[in-house]
Amino acid sequence: MTVELICVGTELLLGNIVNTNAAYLAEKCAGLGLSCYYQTVVGDNEQRLENTLHTAIERSDIVILSGGLGPTEDDLTKEVASRVMGRELVEDAGSRACIEAFFAARGAIPTENNWKQALIPRDGIVLPNPNGTAPGVIIAEKDTHVVLLPGPPHELKPMFENHVMPYLMKLEPGIISSQTVKVCGIGESKVETLLKDLIDGQENPTLATYAKTGEVHIRVTAKAEGEKEARRLIKPVVKEIKSRLGNNIYTTEEEVTLERAVVELLLANELTVTCAESCTGGLLSARLINVPGVSDVYKSGYVTYSNKAKRKLLGVKKSTLNKYGAVSRQTAEEMARGLAFLSKSDVAVSITGLAGPDGGTEEKPVGLVYIACCVKGEVTVKEYHFSGNRQTIREAAASAALVLMRSCILEYFSEITFGKK
Amino acid sequence: MTVELICVGTELLLGNIVNTNAAYLAEKCAGLGLSCYYQTVVGDNEQRLENTLHTAIERSDIVILSGGLGPTEDDLTKEVASRVMGRELVEDAGSRACIEAFFAARGAIPTENNWKQALIPRDGIVLPNPNGTAPGVIIAEKDTHVVLLPGPPHELKPMFENHVMPYLMKLEPGIISSQTVKVCGIGESKVETLLKDLIDGQENPTLATYAKTGEVHIRVTAKAEGEKEARRLIKPVVKEIKSRLGNNIYTTEEEVTLERAVVELLLANELTVTCAESCTGGLLSARLINVPGVSDVYKSGYVTYSNKAKRKLLGVKKSTLNKYGAVSRQTAEEMARGLAFLSKSDVAVSITGLAGPDGGTEEKPVGLVYIACCVKGEVTVKEYHFSGNRQTIREAAASAALVLMRSCILEYFSEITFGKK
Repeated sequence: MTVELICVGTELLLGNIVNTNAAYLAEKCAGLGLSCYYQTVVGDNEQRLENTLHTAIERSDIVILSGGLGPTEDDLTKEVASRVMGRELVEDAGSRACIEAFFAARGAIPTENNWKQALIPRDGIVLPNPNGTAPGVIIAEKDTHVVLLPGPPHELKPMFENHVMPYLMKLEPGIISSQTVKVCGIGESKVETLLKDLIDGQENPTLATYAKTGEVHIRVTAKAEGEKEARRLIKPVVKEIKSRLGNNIYTTEEEVTLERAVVELLLANELTVTCAESCTGGLLSARLINVPGVSDVYKSGYVTYSNKAKRKLLGVKKSTLNKYGAVSRQTAEEMARGLAFLSKSDVAVSITGLAGPDGGTEEKPVGLVYIACCVKGEVTVKEYHFSGNRQTIREAAASAALVLMRSCILEYFSEITFGKK
Repeated sequence: MTVELICVGTELLLGNIVNTNAAYLAEKCAGLGLSCYYQTVVGDNEQRLENTLHTAIERSDIVILSGGLGPTEDDLTKEVASRVMGRELVEDAGSRACIEAFFAARGAIPTENNWKQALIPRDGIVLPNPNGTAPGVIIAEKDTHVVLLPGPPHELKPMFENHVMPYLMKLEPGIISSQTVKVCGIGESKVETLLKDLIDGQENPTLATYAKTGEVHIRVTAKAEGEKEARRLIKPVVKEIKSRLGNNIYTTEEEVTLERAVVELLLANELTVTCAESCTGGLLSARLINVPGVSDVYKSGYVTYSNKAKRKLLGVKKSTLNKYGAVSRQTAEEMARGLAFLSKSDVAVSITGLAGPDGGTEEKPVGLVYIACCVKGEVTVKEYHFSGNRQTIREAAASAALVLMRSCILEYFSEITFGKK
């Protein structure tokens, strides 16, 4: 079956906000096995919205509209959809009660126009909205299904997942399911080379690679009648990818980030960690600390931006700074060694680099970064050349540090391999 | 004049990427005084793209297409647009030379299909692409202007700004210009109350408020024949906003962020700064260090996540931690005082809080954060209650710390007011 998205809102046409609802809905619909050929954005204009909806209904089985369900005069989606589908609007007692309850819970009084939100196209399926006052609606007619959703993402998403997805799954019993294999330490082109025959040869499941900052994601997507069948198709392909990419795979779970994988590796080996950051200025620590439960491994860290801080806090030698400069292999190594000594942490990571925009030379250009990782006294230093602006260079450096930490820990504890963990 | 956007790409229809190009182009076009009524996304499909382009040309003066200019068989935008506009494709010598040069600079050899990118619709205006191999094209015909742009944002944006904007400005001499007034320390509803008569009464320029994390932006937008006239309209309104919001305004310049405003305030007063972060784990330092030139004010900082780190590094008393807990007004104050003493910095900021998801109690719920700011020995501590997930709570805390730093410095140096700086 085909689905089409219509996002309603002048703020989208003016570019004031990015259309994340379209990406969200498109991804979910693809996952349900629905084919989406068109997405349209229109403003809060009656005639243009009506024309757009007519066109969509003619060419697609399911039309999902988002936005324009608010209480004001500008909000026209429900009125237009009702007219196009030939349904009159009638008050829905349940929706009225929900609106009353919503305001009562907040100690507020609804205004007259709020009751407009309790009007529902006759015989429409009401989709409750626990996160706002606008209920959603499904209007079904022969082979046409029109779904109206509120625009705010925190209202749209739970409504779609709890009410629209089950409805659509009944319409289209086949599903598309995918699993993501997350890889670090090798680039996208290397991953593609290693998996070329699988990428080219596989029809179901299919393989696609996505380059991210410091990592590559491989998405394995299967079409099947049900989730169980899809998993049966995906499993051997993921196994084959694991056998080819080995330790470069840090997870096969959607919700595990690189920093979480590193924190879990530290926890599994009962290691503590600390960071001394120059150009990244706290980005690496901040990413680690975003992982719940990090307190068992991360106790303290340092932002050593000035040379003096590198000397006083970490014990980097003045002669090293003078001879090799703050951005050098030698300084990175002394930072990591000093940090390990100072903090008594098992793993100590240091970052020093030139994030720009100024300060670059021919010998040491902007983007040059050294990262050192000390695991129980053994130090590894790596040189990197990143491109982009100050922020992207710093973000790339923080990601690279996570990758380096992971590989150094795995190497040190070489008996711990991906398969066994 | 009207403009319409068509974004071409299956990855958009599948929801694999968010359509940031549409938001970017829409915002730029609105700034040029063009009216945009429709945005459409279609896949790399010849027939559907052709139909979409036909519809767009019928109802809009200018059609901007992005994506589908790559070298592969899938990339059809140029072919379809040429056919719809009745132009044949001919090789452009300049574009061929650019492609040669692009590959030579990277020590690579173009493949046969790369030369496809040198084909241009007859009499089309070639838009050079220094950041990739696909040139852009403008096909103009009576009152129809079709603009073809490459999909990657780092190619599309400079091409649009350097070549398409000047072209469009000639078509539509009227412009829309705006200035943003950035405010911190008061919420959006307070700002709206203080400016209500201006927001309601103004027709040209118009005022709109946008809530951001820890700050509010007020956009003043004027329609005028030229930039100079627009500025003349905007100036008195910005002056009036300044007189009402005073020191809560941290900048009226688009490119100045809150962290940059704080760094500039530190520089102007020759102050050094340091941070000790618990729940934010380096986010505040990382934001400060993203400002170029920060090295004159920021030397070193600390991530004191554990209680031991708060004691050992900052000298927080064991009895304070035991009696009041790590997340308390007292601990925040001792952290800031200890940090100021340790670092000899003029300004010392500490953050301690509960970012969750676990660890909250009825008395101290997740989202409770204390921030202390010590300016030359004078300490201010504030209590905050943020909502959201671990990441959003931490980001809100870092923003709040910047706002607190700014107000404490302004208060200490009360002779330095916004107007005089």
